[in-house]
This record gives sequence, structure tokens and C-alpha cells, in this order.
Amino acid sequence: MRPRHLLVLLGLLAAVALPRAQSQPPRSGIDAWIGAHQQAVVRELADLLMIPNVAADGPNIARNVDALRAMLTRHGFKAETLETAGNPLVYGEMTVPGATGTVLVYAHYDGQPVDPKNWKQPNPFVPILRDGRLEDGGRELPGPVDRARYEPDWRLYARSSSDDKSPIIALCAALDALKATGSAPASNVHVVLDGEEEAGSPSLIAAISRYRQKLAADAIVILDGPVHPSGRPTVTFGARGILTVELTVFGPKFGLHSGHYGNWVPNPAFELVRLLASMKDERGHVLVPGFYDGLEPLAPEEKAMLAAVPDDEAALKKLFGIAEVEQPGLSLQDAVQRPSLNIRGLSSAYVGASARTIIPDRATAAIDIRLVKETPSAAMLERLKAHISRQGFFLVERDPDDATRAAHSRIVKLTVEGGETNAYRTSPLAPASRQIVAAVTRMFGQAPVQIRTMGGTVPIAPFIESMGVPAVGVPIVNFDNNQHGENENLRMGTFFTGITTLAAVLTAPVPVAPTPGKRPVAGHGESQRTR
Amino acid sequence: MRPRHLLVLLGLLAAVALPRAQSQPPRSGIDAWIGAHQQAVVRELADLLMIPNVAADGPNIARNVDALRAMLTRHGFKAETLETAGNPLVYGEMTVPGATGTVLVYAHYDGQPVDPKNWKQPNPFVPILRDGRLEDGGRELPGPVDRARYEPDWRLYARSSSDDKSPIIALCAALDALKATGSAPASNVHVVLDGEEEAGSPSLIAAISRYRQKLAADAIVILDGPVHPSGRPTVTFGARGILTVELTVFGPKFGLHSGHYGNWVPNPAFELVRLLASMKDERGHVLVPGFYDGLEPLAPEEKAMLAAVPDDEAALKKLFGIAEVEQPGLSLQDAVQRPSLNIRGLSSAYVGASARTIIPDRATAAIDIRLVKETPSAAMLERLKAHISRQGFFLVERDPDDATRAAHSRIVKLTVEGGETNAYRTSPLAPASRQIVAAVTRMFGQAPVQIRTMGGTVPIAPFIESMGVPAVGVPIVNFDNNQHGENENLRMGTFFTGITTLAAVLTAPVPVAPTPGKRPVAGHGESQRTR
Repeated sequence: MRPRHLLVLLGLLAAVALPRAQSQPPRSGIDAWIGAHQQAVVRELADLLMIPNVAADGPNIARNVDALRAMLTRHGFKAETLETAGNPLVYGEMTVPGATGTVLVYAHYDGQPVDPKNWKQPNPFVPILRDGRLEDGGRELPGPVDRARYEPDWRLYARSSSDDKSPIIALCAALDALKATGSAPASNVHVVLDGEEEAGSPSLIAAISRYRQKLAADAIVILDGPVHPSGRPTVTFGARGILTVELTVFGPKFGLHSGHYGNWVPNPAFELVRLLASMKDERGHVLVPGFYDGLEPLAPEEKAMLAAVPDDEAALKKLFGIAEVEQPGLSLQDAVQRPSLNIRGLSSAYVGASARTIIPDRATAAIDIRLVKETPSAAMLERLKAHISRQGFFLVERDPDDATRAAHSRIVKLTVEGGETNAYRTSPLAPASRQIVAAVTRMFGQAPVQIRTMGGTVPIAPFIESMGVPAVGVPIVNFDNNQHGENENLRMGTFFTGITTLAAVLTAPVPVAPTPGKRPVAGHGESQRTR
Repeated sequence: MRPRHLLVLLGLLAAVALPRAQSQPPRSGIDAWIGAHQQAVVRELADLLMIPNVAADGPNIARNVDALRAMLTRHGFKAETLETAGNPLVYGEMTVPGATGTVLVYAHYDGQPVDPKNWKQPNPFVPILRDGRLEDGGRELPGPVDRARYEPDWRLYARSSSDDKSPIIALCAALDALKATGSAPASNVHVVLDGEEEAGSPSLIAAISRYRQKLAADAIVILDGPVHPSGRPTVTFGARGILTVELTVFGPKFGLHSGHYGNWVPNPAFELVRLLASMKDERGHVLVPGFYDGLEPLAPEEKAMLAAVPDDEAALKKLFGIAEVEQPGLSLQDAVQRPSLNIRGLSSAYVGASARTIIPDRATAAIDIRLVKETPSAAMLERLKAHISRQGFFLVERDPDDATRAAHSRIVKLTVEGGETNAYRTSPLAPASRQIVAAVTRMFGQAPVQIRTMGGTVPIAPFIESMGVPAVGVPIVNFDNNQHGENENLRMGTFFTGITTLAAVLTAPVPVAPTPGKRPVAGHGESQRTR
């Protein structure tokens, strides 16, 4: 399909037969408010970033909860803490006069672990401002990080500056901006802030039945992940799931001198690399039988949506310093419609200055499999195990004892680490999806980038499926934010545009669900597909 | 060949047509002296082990040098320090009245690095005594480690307790024992103690020409490595060499979110495991073309020697906790006659609790290749590089710049780490070899275990080749000493028997070389093969 035809089709999808929102203010009004309030907004963000938020750090998690509850209250929510078996949820309700529907906004306040020695600043939880991207020579700007004005290319560096505290701040700012411009959200706004997203959101999922009345809604808006690299406003309709496993192959019971026994005692690192190499070919095709089962060719509308995403793949390759992609010829959008198999870590004995001439006693690979809606976690795990067995390995769940060692060569321990999360996907053609796209289109005079499946994971697929309502993602942070790595950062221009995007989304007249948010919500484990 | 025939052949090799040593005392005399002096001998060893000896630890290396020079002097040597570009050599000369030949005894005083948290004692440099092997439940014996008597199964735990400080102590004790029993070495005894063996002995090799007169000899006796697992006295005629390389495959310039880019950005860990998997098959056969070039079928005498080694392979497999060896059907002795390819370490991003969901920016493998005399290091390195290139990788010597990244997929950095050491092998049929075997046979009433090639490396092959004289290894420590790993230890019974073995070796009438030790010694780089 030619690009011009694509644009026509997407324009039709966005604009035809949708009721117009009555209360959307012009972009200029929202932007003027943001321009006048940048300093206060960033001060609020910086204060939040100063509270460390690694999910396992209980005392600081409690400080985050208190700060967030107070913040929601300041911005007009009736806020409360919802206790769970793990880190609490922070919850807020904003009732809009005359609104019949309810939108539940999801974000998370916990962040990935940090390795401070790899950061180019003393403390990942003390934000600093740079006049550009660190890797491009961005220099630290002396003085406070909250300023009366910002250049769009300035960046705030701190853990969770992008993932995922700035969206919470942006939501509050968008509500303030709507109010200041005499507008209001089209629906009641409920917000739930998750404290264990980076650990798989176990407590949110477990809390569904306990808090079903509070969490029920007509649509869910997910604030997580980055906007499209073009920087354009972006909406997403799905996200890949994840399954993380660790594989440990066992060699001799203790490290053995590689001279005395090399060639004779099996080397667990060689066995591990052979096993891993059996899983994916040189062209990036996963060789685990059944890995792609259930995937079907995309519909023409879906193909058009993927093709319309303005990916600058040449620029990405240059930015990342790679000459070729893993599967030559496969576009980035095509790639993330499929499950992926990623080695995220390898370890065996030592490398570098600490290396010793031994046959290691074990070798470990940490793996993540990104799932799509058609490849649920449980089935994928079984396929992986079956493949490993077929390679001649004996699977165990814990370190082998002497009897197991005597009975089996090629022993591999497989453990599922950090939980499993299925993918989710809402139809881009669902009315709520179309209203949100239309609202952003009106605000910016251009359709947002529409992402059928986001590559990353928001671990709330079971939650979405239990709710039985459409779920649309509205990311607002820069794509090159070093999310999950060191030197995570937030590009200021992208952030401020994101506030405008959220203001638009809040004005979308989301259709009230047939049993509008109050119907009994299925417990964890039952699945009610969004389509 | 049947075992009985083997014994006849080996007996012939050991006993026929050799002059009898005149001055060898009976075993009972040597053993009585050892029994009466165990405490002093072990105290001397413990004092030496208390001085940390990692080669890079200059101040403690200096303390070792001072202690060793004083010790050699105490035991009758004219001792001195030979300065080098790196750690000094400790050198001693003992002139024996009437002796015409000279034996140079080599040992090393440096040890492998330690990782104290993995040791079952507070400090690897503070020896402790156990009533058995740690892994078999051996308990620490309270009180001082120097005792009036020891059970043979007791073990002294400390770094370098086996590798390689105890042989130095044993040499001094053997000389004392000979003297006390009215005997004397058959040759003048020169000793050189290397301070950089675990780093490849660069300074010893470089010092050959500087100290050629002091180092010249008619034969070399190497004190390093373990006795045969049977515990029987052992002599060795060669050792494998080593080539250590590190391979780093580069992915994106920084770790990338595995969700957003998994399937699209190449994963360096997958590229590394595929590269490594291409190097060795499931049956342990190395697939690098030319890896085994130059190896020829063994002569019947050599096959007999290998077959006569009393390896208890079933016991080794049980001890190590392995069900099968790497190359099914290959004996341990056969295995170490060949070069080996060992992954000694793997590293990429993180595993375990620190694992993060990223595509790593790089993945590294530390490799060692054990060499045999027919496979010199330089040729092996070229073969490895050629293989890597044939797998489609672009070889670099340092981290790639942007232009290199843009021009090439599959970039791998290859560096040679820790120097290279060729193998050496002296003919077991050389007169010096036969005299030493005969002397040990007389002392114990049984031929020693004879090892054509020791699996481990003593990095003095260039030294031996430059000297142009036979070199025979006489290991004296237990095989299960955890050499190079944590909880290195010395079995006391094996150690004391080793003193007796050395006393026998010192009485072997080693033939005087045609130009007895005084001929100009070739400089480093020239090669004069022993056969």
C-alpha cells in the first residue's frame, strides 16, 4: 500500500462517525498554562524522584506512597492508600460533574534497581539537569533543576525520571491545565499507582477482587513506556508480555584446573552455549518448536497501521551503533508483533583480570521471552522446556544432588524468575480507541502515531482482561530515555508535550461500557478478552 | 598390550644399563628423619604461606623474596636475589664435593589470586589444619598447624599450600635429610624460584640471557603440579602450554530495553554463544580447522606409558560429580596429549537478582587453549582467528568506534590475556629421564607413575628450550588440592612422601651435558629442541 493511501485510511479511522468532544480547549491554551507552570511542575517531579523507589526498599516505598497520596489530594483527587500483600497501591478518584463514564489511569511509582557506579552522576536518586543527551556531550547545568524555562532538548537525569514517575506528574499537570482553561475531563478520572511494576505487579493483580469497585471503569489508560522516536504523540493498543527464566548448566562440583582436566571433564559453559545457540539461528529466527504458534497474518488495517509508523530505522541503527538488525528485512514494528527470545545476562566463573584457568562448576544464562497475545506464558514455557529436553539436557528445578549427577550428563536447572506476564491487546477499532485517537488528532492537528503492539511490557494484562474494557496506552516520555539502564533521563520538551497529549486524552468522550464499570469483575485467573 | 607386558617394558626402561647411584640412602633412613622433623618442616611452610603471594602485590612479593633467600641460606645454599623487570627470582647454589654435573631445580613462589569470600576460612593466607578433606567433612583442628606428628589424611588449607610453596620446603627438607643420613646429592644443586609463574613467567624468560651462567645446568627438575591421583610418586616429561584469549562481541552501544528492541537489535550474547558453539561439538571435538594439526600417532612405548598410568577414572568422575567425560571413550591420559579448548569464564550484563530486561551492550568469553608440543601458540592463535572470521565475525583488537560499528555486523574483539606459553616435552627415553625414574624406583621398590604430558602448564617452555637440556617434572602434592580454586590444600601424607621422592631424585646421577652447563645459552626466541 502506498503511503498516501495509508494516510487516507488512517484519517478515516480517526475521524469518521465519532461524536465531537465538547470541552476540549485549544492547544494554545494548554501550552500557555504549561509554559507558565514549568518550574512548579518540575519541582514536583524532582521532589518525587528524590525518594528512592526500588520495589524491595520498603521504607522508601512508604515515603513514595505518602508523597503520592498528598500529591493526588493537592491536585483534586480524593486519595487513599490501598494496602496489598506487597507494596501499597496509591488510589485517587476525581468525580467530574455531568460525566457518566469513568476512565481508570494506570501508572507505577516503583523503578528498576540501580547500579550507581555506572551512572554519570553521584546518586541516581538526586536528579541533575543536562543541556542535552549525555552520550552527545550534554553537560550538567549548575543550579537547581527547577527553572522558569527549559530548552526542549534539556534532560533531567534520575532513576524513574521517565519510567514511570513523570507520567504521574504529567497527569496532575494536565488536569490542572484543563481546569485553568475552563475545561474538564469527559469522564470521571480514577487513578491507580502500582508499586511493583518492575517486579511484575503481583500485588495489583492479587488486589483486583478486593478492590473491584474502586478499580472498575469503562476504559483504562496506561501511562508507561516511551513515545515513538519521532517524538510525535503516540497511542498504543497493546504491549508484549514477558517470561523470564534462568538456565544453569552444571559442570564438575567445583572449579577444576583446566590444564589437568581440560578435554576430559565436560565444560558447563560450552554446554550452555550449545544449548543457547540451538534456540535461535543467525538470522534471528527462534528455533524453539512452536515459538510462533498462533500468530496469523495481519489484517490490511493492521498492516497499514504498522506501515504508517514513522520509524527512522537508519537513525536508530546509527544511535545504537549497529550495522544491521537481527532479522534483516524485518521492520521494527513487524518485529515487535512477534515474540522474542533475548539473552539478558550470562555468567560463568570470571572474565577479565579475575579470570582463572578453571573448568567452571556452572554456567548461567538469564533469558527473557517477550510474549504476544497469541503466545501466552504457560504454553511458551512448556515449549522451551520441551526444546531443552530434545537437546539432550536433563531438566531440574534445583541444584542436582550426587545421585542426579551420577545418573545424568548435561543437567540444566530452569527457574522462572520475576513472575510471568502475558501480553494484552485492545482492538484499535474499538470505540474507546478511536475516541482517544480522535481527541489527540484534534489537539495537534495530526493523527498520533498508533502502535498496535508496544515492544515492552506493562504487567497488567491479567488486570485488563479481568476488567473486560478497552485499554489504551498513552506514553509521554522520550524513547532514548535509557529506561531500565543507567543514566535514565527525561527530555523536557517531550515531557511538556506529553502534558498536552494527556489533556487531550482526558477530553475524549469514552463510551460507557454496557455494564458501566460496576459489573462484577472476574477474579484473577478468569479471562474476559477485550475482543 | 596386556598389563603384564606393559610392566615388563616399563621395568626395562627403568632398570637397564643405568649406572647405580652410589650415595642413595635407604628409604627407612629418609623417612625416619622426616618423622622426627615434621613439626619444623611444617612450621617453615606455614610461615611462608602467611606471606601473601599474588604476583601483582609488590610489597608482599618482596617479603616472600626476603624470606626465601633467608630460608635457602639456612639450608646450605649460597642464596641471592636476581632482579628482573618484574618480580625478582630467588636463586641458590649448593656445590656438592666431587659432583661434576649440575641440576637446576625450578619452583615458583607466587600464587593464584584469591576470592576470600569463597574460602571456608577467614583468610586464605592464614593456614588452617583439617582432619580430612573439606568436601568430605574434614573439620578444622584447633591449635597450631605445626605438630609433632600428623595423620597422613590431615590437610593444610591455604593459598599456595600446594601450588607451589610446599615443593620449595620439601626440597630443603630433602637436602637436610640426605645430609643427616650421610648422603649427598649426585650433582650440584642450583635452585631458581620464579615470582610470576601464575602470570606466565615473563620475567624469568626475559632474564635468561642476563643470568645465563647461573641458570645453565645439565638437567632441569621442575617442582610443580600434583602427583598422580593414585598418590604414587610421579615423574613427568612434559606439560601442556597455554594460550588465553578473551573474546568480546559488541551489541548496541548501550544496554537497550529488551521489550522495545528485542527481535530487532542484535543480541551480542546470542552472537557470542553461536560463535563459541561453532568451536566444539557435542562430543568434545574441537571444530577449529587445524586445531589438531601436527599430532601424530604415539609410538608403542608411549602408548604403553599412557596405559600404565593407574588412573581410577570412575573415582574421579564420582569425585567431580560427572556422569560422563567430555569425549566418551577417551582416557584422561589420552585427553591431555591433545590440545584443549576451554571456556573459563562468561559474562554479559547480569544474572540472578541483578538481572535486568535489557539487550546487553556486549558479551565476553574468557578462553584458554591448552597446547601440546606439536601445536605452538602462535599457530593456534592464527587458526582461532581464521575460524572466527569464517563464522562471519569482524575481528578487532580494541573496542570499535562508530565507523567500525557502522561498517560491520558481528564485531568481536580478540585479545590475548596473560601471555602465551608453549608446551614442552622431554623424551622419557633420554638418559637423565631414565636416571631419575631409576632413582625413584630404587627408593620405593616400585616404578613411579610416568606421565608423558602433564595437563597443566609450567610457563618455562622457552626457558627449557633455550637451555637445551632434559627437563623432568617431579610433582609432590596431592591431586585434589583445589589448585587455582578456593580452599587450596596440601595432604600431609602426600607431602611427606614427596620429601622422600625428592631425596631420591637428588641422588640420580644425571649425565653431564656434552657442553656441561657452561656453553652459551641461546637467547630468548631461539629454540633448541630437547629432541
